[in-house]
Amino acid sequence: MTRPRMDFYFEFASTYSYLSALRLPSLAEAAGVDVRWRPFLLGPIFAVQGWNTSPFNIYAAKGRYMWRDVERRAARYGLDVIRPDPFPQNGLLAARVAQLALAQPRGIEFCQNVFLAEFGAGQDISDPDTIKACLASAGLPMTLLADAQNDTNKHALRTTTDTAARLGIFGAPSFIVGDELFWGDDRMHDALDWATRHG
Amino acid sequence: MTRPRMDFYFEFASTYSYLSALRLPSLAEAAGVDVRWRPFLLGPIFAVQGWNTSPFNIYAAKGRYMWRDVERRAARYGLDVIRPDPFPQNGLLAARVAQLALAQPRGIEFCQNVFLAEFGAGQDISDPDTIKACLASAGLPMTLLADAQNDTNKHALRTTTDTAARLGIFGAPSFIVGDELFWGDDRMHDALDWATRHG
Repeated sequence: MTRPRMDFYFEFASTYSYLSALRLPSLAEAAGVDVRWRPFLLGPIFAVQGWNTSPFNIYAAKGRYMWRDVERRAARYGLDVIRPDPFPQNGLLAARVAQLALAQPRGIEFCQNVFLAEFGAGQDISDPDTIKACLASAGLPMTLLADAQNDTNKHALRTTTDTAARLGIFGAPSFIVGDELFWGDDRMHDALDWATRHG
Repeated sequence: MTRPRMDFYFEFASTYSYLSALRLPSLAEAAGVDVRWRPFLLGPIFAVQGWNTSPFNIYAAKGRYMWRDVERRAARYGLDVIRPDPFPQNGLLAARVAQLALAQPRGIEFCQNVFLAEFGAGQDISDPDTIKACLASAGLPMTLLADAQNDTNKHALRTTTDTAARLGIFGAPSFIVGDELFWGDDRMHDALDWATRHG
């Protein structure tokens, strides 16, 4: 008998992805669901919608609400929230390194380190030094930083982003269970529940 | 000692407002929260954001997701979902009548009847006959239909919509508890919880 499975699509620049990434491993473990972490880029997907930055910047009222909402929810989860400057951060380097890190045993820890550096400590995640520190804390080799820039790995990230778009993903985090898409940190429980019932 | 209070801002054309409106009375009663129902119009608020229709129509992927998400959630709540044609419906008449109906004991029932006619039965809620049937089912006088079109009542709806915008509301349903805004059917529990803890 196979365990239920779920794909977790996340973007390092995304506040709600932060809330999900820090909580998902323990919740997935409790639910008995195997999760594949899929870093992708929202930029190309937003561009198709006509946006050249985060919709939270374009729509001011929505942006103000988002920060307060994230603050309230993070408090409930015992997480800090600092607004990185600039917002959104450029998550390209982090996503490329994450692809390689996630093939290693402590890849999820690397991803969580990046989110904590960004939203817990306000660090610039496009700075290679930040990424190096996140690798180091996860006990991963520094060579991943250079390897992440090879063409095969760059291409893999584009493919994941294309796949996300093809699956109907328009924001992050998103969860895919079979043919079902769940969007948003507030749908993570529903997605896990769907996986255990239909996975 | 006063009971905790909450304002429920809803738009008759909104699918997620339907999910909230049908469930709110029993949940608020259980939580001991007094709720003021505030029908308003999203049209003027969307127009400020540069949208001339529902964002679910403008952003196709988001729209496809919304219908599936509403379908899944409605199933959980034992509610039907029919896509009214056109979507979004014009909720102006319903909102005007609702303002007067809500001053009467069975006003909430009228509002729920409108949502059920629209999303449960696919009826046109801009049709006065639909509104009449909703009034009749709630045992409310037909005179409300004509009274709803007087200038004072029209002005009151504009004032509510202006107030919503001033409060930072950018979508529906929205819940106001003191200075806190909660957006979306999926934040209704949080809003009630906030009201009981801080109201």
